Amino acid sequence: MRIPEHVGIIPDGNRRWALSNNLTKDKGYEYGINPGLELFKLCQKENVKEITFYGFTVDNTKRPSEQKFAFIKACIDSVMLLTKEDCEILVIGNTESKNFPQELLLFTTRQKFGAGGIKVNFLIHYGWEWDLNLLKKSNSSKKHILPYIHSEDISRIDLIIRWGGRRRLSGFLPVQSVYSDFYVIDSYWPDFTSKDFYTALEWYNDQDVTLGG
Amino acid sequence: MRIPEHVGIIPDGNRRWALSNNLTKDKGYEYGINPGLELFKLCQKENVKEITFYGFTVDNTKRPSEQKFAFIKACIDSVMLLTKEDCEILVIGNTESKNFPQELLLFTTRQKFGAGGIKVNFLIHYGWEWDLNLLKKSNSSKKHILPYIHSEDISRIDLIIRWGGRRRLSGFLPVQSVYSDFYVIDSYWPDFTSKDFYTALEWYNDQDVTLGG
Repeated sequence: MRIPEHVGIIPDGNRRWALSNNLTKDKGYEYGINPGLELFKLCQKENVKEITFYGFTVDNTKRPSEQKFAFIKACIDSVMLLTKEDCEILVIGNTESKNFPQELLLFTTRQKFGAGGIKVNFLIHYGWEWDLNLLKKSNSSKKHILPYIHSEDISRIDLIIRWGGRRRLSGFLPVQSVYSDFYVIDSYWPDFTSKDFYTALEWYNDQDVTLGG
Repeated sequence: MRIPEHVGIIPDGNRRWALSNNLTKDKGYEYGINPGLELFKLCQKENVKEITFYGFTVDNTKRPSEQKFAFIKACIDSVMLLTKEDCEILVIGNTESKNFPQELLLFTTRQKFGAGGIKVNFLIHYGWEWDLNLLKKSNSSKKHILPYIHSEDISRIDLIIRWGGRRRLSGFLPVQSVYSDFYVIDSYWPDFTSKDFYTALEWYNDQDVTLGG
């Protein structure tokens, strides 16, 4: 089986899941923490080299404050859970705002835990325009783009899996996603099961790789 | 019905269509010209304001030369066909190469035909890295990205429709696609029918618009 080297995760549907379970929207996020750990362990087992989780964006912080506090807390807790595993964690996002959690500042340089190994990236207070804006400060005449953006330490993504049924990138790493295969799962992220992951891997196995050629 | 203002078209599957019809790969492209005209007329009828066709990329020109000549000719013919309609045509791509067809140089400034109206953009010898590289020459401190890339005259895309079954953007306008809804049709582009378009529109009608919020 052809295993993607780098998997991008868009864990959408937390609020819709909360409403469908008679909870207020802000209550959905904490139910997305364990699925993240489960998915991490499956990736580790299947020898995926790198995972990137879409945490939250600059635009997301315009939501009602109880939601904002809830998703920020869920992101912090998700990162902290992984510090107990064998992995190398990197947080990418605009740190120049009170919406960037101070608890995660340390992780803006990649940190190794346990035996290291799989790279895990979290986008935290990320904005695609913020990411690309660094290009304006580059004088390079080289044709490449990735080395000159804020998320330069995140590699090209092979497979993006999105939960919650929406078929869009919603600003997720536009440069690393240009050639990514995009798989959408209709169920909400808190309802994650390992079957979701394996269905996506099987689908990916049937795709060809052209990289624009 | 909620109609997308701007529809992006990835007309993939010409070569696979040719093989499945006992033709050589290069023969597929000419069968993609009429579908483009049909789709244009449907967009016009449904009051879509802008369409962008993915013509060919810098990377595509590395293909065998008989294929290269065939898709370049099909692109030129597609643009020329539309000059007989009411529309405003713009061609975006890297003109500094012999692979950019001289016949289309005129269209690198938007040209109005007939009564004008619907904008039709063609990506011709386009490269996503080429597009974004212009940011390196910008001194702007403004947070926006679109006004500083080569494809600045192409607006944000609401709905991308891809034929040929692949679920990836393949370098199609990464900046304008960040929030686009992405609909994939399994049949090959030369087998286009109006039902494809209306199925995509009906699906789009059921999506919500969040623009990252």
